[in-house]
Amino acid sequence: MGISLKDVAQRAGVSIKTVSNVVNGYRHVTPQTRQRVQRAIDELGYRPNLTARHLRKGRTGMIALAVPELTNPYFAELADAVIEHAAGLDYIVLLDHTGGRRDQEVLFAQGFRARVIDGLILSPIELENEDLLARESDAPLVLLGEREYSAPYDHIAIDNVAAARTAAAHLVEIGRRRVAFVGARHGRARATAHLRLRGWREVMGESGLPSDDALIAVTDGYSREDGAQAVARLLDSGQRPDAVFCYNDLIAVGAMRTLAERGLRVPDDVAVVGFDDIEESRYGATTLTTVAPHKRAIARAATDMLLDRLAGEADTPPRRIQPGFALITRESTVGRP
Amino acid sequence: MGISLKDVAQRAGVSIKTVSNVVNGYRHVTPQTRQRVQRAIDELGYRPNLTARHLRKGRTGMIALAVPELTNPYFAELADAVIEHAAGLDYIVLLDHTGGRRDQEVLFAQGFRARVIDGLILSPIELENEDLLARESDAPLVLLGEREYSAPYDHIAIDNVAAARTAAAHLVEIGRRRVAFVGARHGRARATAHLRLRGWREVMGESGLPSDDALIAVTDGYSREDGAQAVARLLDSGQRPDAVFCYNDLIAVGAMRTLAERGLRVPDDVAVVGFDDIEESRYGATTLTTVAPHKRAIARAATDMLLDRLAGEADTPPRRIQPGFALITRESTVGRP
Repeated sequence: MGISLKDVAQRAGVSIKTVSNVVNGYRHVTPQTRQRVQRAIDELGYRPNLTARHLRKGRTGMIALAVPELTNPYFAELADAVIEHAAGLDYIVLLDHTGGRRDQEVLFAQGFRARVIDGLILSPIELENEDLLARESDAPLVLLGEREYSAPYDHIAIDNVAAARTAAAHLVEIGRRRVAFVGARHGRARATAHLRLRGWREVMGESGLPSDDALIAVTDGYSREDGAQAVARLLDSGQRPDAVFCYNDLIAVGAMRTLAERGLRVPDDVAVVGFDDIEESRYGATTLTTVAPHKRAIARAATDMLLDRLAGEADTPPRRIQPGFALITRESTVGRP
Repeated sequence: MGISLKDVAQRAGVSIKTVSNVVNGYRHVTPQTRQRVQRAIDELGYRPNLTARHLRKGRTGMIALAVPELTNPYFAELADAVIEHAAGLDYIVLLDHTGGRRDQEVLFAQGFRARVIDGLILSPIELENEDLLARESDAPLVLLGEREYSAPYDHIAIDNVAAARTAAAHLVEIGRRRVAFVGARHGRARATAHLRLRGWREVMGESGLPSDDALIAVTDGYSREDGAQAVARLLDSGQRPDAVFCYNDLIAVGAMRTLAERGLRVPDDVAVVGFDDIEESRYGATTLTTVAPHKRAIARAATDMLLDRLAGEADTPPRRIQPGFALITRESTVGRP
């Protein structure tokens, strides 16, 4: 192409080293300088040879991200944010899905793509601590989501108990007395559902409200259909909850569908709260009150932690980041204004 | 690992060549044989060295897929299907999004990742024919979606005019007389919207119903918010349609939200039809009638066409595949049974 780092440096009025730092995605460059260099790059049409550059450092310039399901909008929105942020740091994201299956998660964590990626971000569902302890790959790994692990890896998760408490407390505050939980899981492996269930149970106990098993609907998965079927079973069993707190927004969407089919009004007859704040929750005949984890913060933290490891922080102790969340009240609990 | 191709061949009772064919993802192996070999692979825990194997053939074993938006469920569902199908053929999919921006689409089509991918699948929005003619990369490229190009590339698209006609005819059949179209685009580049608009206009004309500009709502994008705002503008302009045919399901979801806010009942006051059959359309207080392109068929065809090119069909003329579609009638047009 004929355009070199030197040309960019002259145009931007900075050193070649600075241009190199920007092009290499090192983060210790001021935003102002980065912007000036980027403008020069754009004006000159300079295209760094990504692969060669990464290869010189013994890297591929690619990181992998594995989520349980791309068709779950929460993960699609999260992946979108990771891809966007990584691109700004000159990294390509190889996106994959595990189906939430332990074997796929192990395969991914073991780094079956070790030759083509520099590091990986994994949002596990079924992965066990022992799987991580048995991990042989030394490619940096960042764990996403709420499973608790003692294995020494960087980990990003919101405080699920606190978030669930906030949602449950909101339902109590608006006067609901029979609050069901929809989306519990069997087995010790599904820790996130257990954490949210715990938050719900704590608030019910403190409020003197029932939290017996009859009010807990177990689901096999996290889909709209799971939610629709679970609420149908709950109603068929004779339960008449005046509120349901759902494990996630998809389950809540399914729950609201069943309530509509049974002629129950939301929120008049049954208030509904979800979790995730997927875009869909802001639409529908009745918008959905939900717990919103800060997805963009999660995506940025995951990418940055991984690139920090790649930049040589291999031996520092694993970090744990707890991004914030917010309860967003909408029509499904407070009605239309 | 210790497990070789030979071990797998002995276990499966086939030749090493056959195992190699299966492992390499060649498609001229009968499903029965493939299954037998796969079972032996699973039982023995054989793990082919993907990268090395592909590298021997001068390939990376990775293909790229770029869609406009991962947060549009239609594309998430499509990407999911491509990843799934490619994995079965031992290909890894590098997933990216272009934002529907021409510069990003050109960059992608030019093969800026040419060194790390074997070929690419692109679902363009703004890409022009001249961009394709100017393409320098010789990596196989398969185009997805309904833009019409004369440039010689494999292309997969449904018949949008016919699909839109089916949707519009359904609205006429159920007795609607003022059918609006929501999601038209300005400019010649947005061919898909024009094709669907044409289908709508043809049916309106043949039915002696109005299709003037006052009934056409233009949107900037394809999101729920675009749909909600477009219908709000339509109603504010004094129009009282008794049906809206929306460019896609997301726009329809937004349209239904505005109708709910205005106190208009679906379908009693306004019938709604979408396009894409995203999972969300099967939920909500009112399920959505929609045109369903066969997403899985599209994903399989795109992947297979690309791998066929990689397998040596570089010089055969470009092919055009037109997958089928179906109109799925739900509550938003025919009400609750």
